[in-house]
Amino acid sequence: MDKKTIDIIEVGPRDGFQNLKTFLPTQQKVDLIERLLQCGIRHMQITSFVSPKAIPQLRDAAEVCKSILSRHSLQELDLYALIPNLRGAQAAWSAGLRKVNNVISLSPTHNKANINRTHDESFAELALILEQLPEMEVVLDVATAFGCPFEGKYLDFQPLLDFLRRAYGLGIRTFNLCDTVGLADPVQVRRVIGAVRQTFTDVRIEIHIHDTRAMGLVNTLAAIEVGVDGVQSTLGGLGGCPFAPGASGNTATEDMVYMLTEMGYDTNIDVTALINAAKYEYSLIPEGIFSGHLLHIDTPRGCHITK
Amino acid sequence: MDKKTIDIIEVGPRDGFQNLKTFLPTQQKVDLIERLLQCGIRHMQITSFVSPKAIPQLRDAAEVCKSILSRHSLQELDLYALIPNLRGAQAAWSAGLRKVNNVISLSPTHNKANINRTHDESFAELALILEQLPEMEVVLDVATAFGCPFEGKYLDFQPLLDFLRRAYGLGIRTFNLCDTVGLADPVQVRRVIGAVRQTFTDVRIEIHIHDTRAMGLVNTLAAIEVGVDGVQSTLGGLGGCPFAPGASGNTATEDMVYMLTEMGYDTNIDVTALINAAKYEYSLIPEGIFSGHLLHIDTPRGCHITK
Repeated sequence: MDKKTIDIIEVGPRDGFQNLKTFLPTQQKVDLIERLLQCGIRHMQITSFVSPKAIPQLRDAAEVCKSILSRHSLQELDLYALIPNLRGAQAAWSAGLRKVNNVISLSPTHNKANINRTHDESFAELALILEQLPEMEVVLDVATAFGCPFEGKYLDFQPLLDFLRRAYGLGIRTFNLCDTVGLADPVQVRRVIGAVRQTFTDVRIEIHIHDTRAMGLVNTLAAIEVGVDGVQSTLGGLGGCPFAPGASGNTATEDMVYMLTEMGYDTNIDVTALINAAKYEYSLIPEGIFSGHLLHIDTPRGCHITK
Repeated sequence: MDKKTIDIIEVGPRDGFQNLKTFLPTQQKVDLIERLLQCGIRHMQITSFVSPKAIPQLRDAAEVCKSILSRHSLQELDLYALIPNLRGAQAAWSAGLRKVNNVISLSPTHNKANINRTHDESFAELALILEQLPEMEVVLDVATAFGCPFEGKYLDFQPLLDFLRRAYGLGIRTFNLCDTVGLADPVQVRRVIGAVRQTFTDVRIEIHIHDTRAMGLVNTLAAIEVGVDGVQSTLGGLGGCPFAPGASGNTATEDMVYMLTEMGYDTNIDVTALINAAKYEYSLIPEGIFSGHLLHIDTPRGCHITK
């Protein structure tokens, strides 16, 4: 029987690092990225090209790219960065990247609060990026795809389909559906992804699930089992705004890879090395919010002698 | 469309309290049990009748039962206690209970380490309990049903089926399959429960999943979706041996009820009240190991305005 596969997309160097209060030195960022690559990670958001005033933590985006790309080829690895606008996309291109993800919130309220734009303004900017950088691959991150902190959980997915149709019309062929504040549940995830898959037969679907309400792994598994192409997570579950101690991180990469490995998936990732990397990151960032479990366990695979 | 249902079985007053270092006063135990009942919990292990030398934390088992049964009827509520032997079963009967769960480990190594008995000795004791207390309902807790800390994860479920057949022959009609040290994965859970269901068509199947390796909710959901009759959990996820800080608790009742409620299950449990009870317990037991997420969130349902 062929083993099942799924793309594991590490986004800790973007979504994890951006939330820290203390600036993580560039060399430590690069070291953590290198460790992740050594574990077998092949897909990674390595930084974000945003205003250093808005997110000072990632003001070294160009340096991080330069360092990583001096040793690794984009032919072999799928490395990219988040960008909020054309300016960010241009900076990413100059730094040597050929792929970016652009964020627009499905919730107009959240889009306005997050990037101070209407949907029309955001889609106009996206069109501009695609026009100005025709060789850049652009993923659309749909923030608040399952629910919004201001508008609530979305039970009707028609607005999402309309939103995606607009992006599809511009040429977008990868949708990353984000549960930005952890409101989704497995039934909703299955319904929404089923509807998106049925409506768009030639797109790539990814998900980005926050663990705020403990639904990280159940929602990720639900998405995998209805056939998403890639799942995003962060090493150690690092992430979130620090309003909920110990609870508002992302889905932890090592917990997810452990689960999938135990279930018989072929992830091509060394789960023990990944747990050690998470422990290292945990020791490095005492202020971080980590939602991962396995990084606290001494011998997670110690008992794994099959009988 | 009819709402789906599932029995939620709270086992915190047994599996949570037994692991504490400090004696939790009887009145606080009773208060927490009362709070759980007020939330809508209808199935609960309220204590354990074991040697006070082995587990001093639960030396007030009879007092707890007396207090609870003075206000509640076993006709309306499914309240019971764990017992390791005939002596415990007799004490439970004297305390007014009419249902107990007896534990035997599938792993002979673990059974020896845990209760110092061979399988033959354990099944002989079980037979004695059934013979001596013919009106007592007895659930069989199958410890290490999915894997053992000494023997590893079980990939072959034939030994489990043989083990259950032996118990079935004695008259047991409720099997509670325990993932004692959190080694199970969703694929294994589905396979094992599918096999048990196919082999025994007239039994009740429950599961007891530890969250040691973050698989608490995914395994619980996997079990529910292949049709178990009841799932066990503890308020706050309280539990575990304290070797793995923050990570070795049980599946948290409030996280599970939240998940099921969001998925459209009718649990008849007030999830907000349950989260408040978990927060209260968390404040009461500073030494406890809690694996729950929602007890750290201020307004878990604050955003739940459907759109």
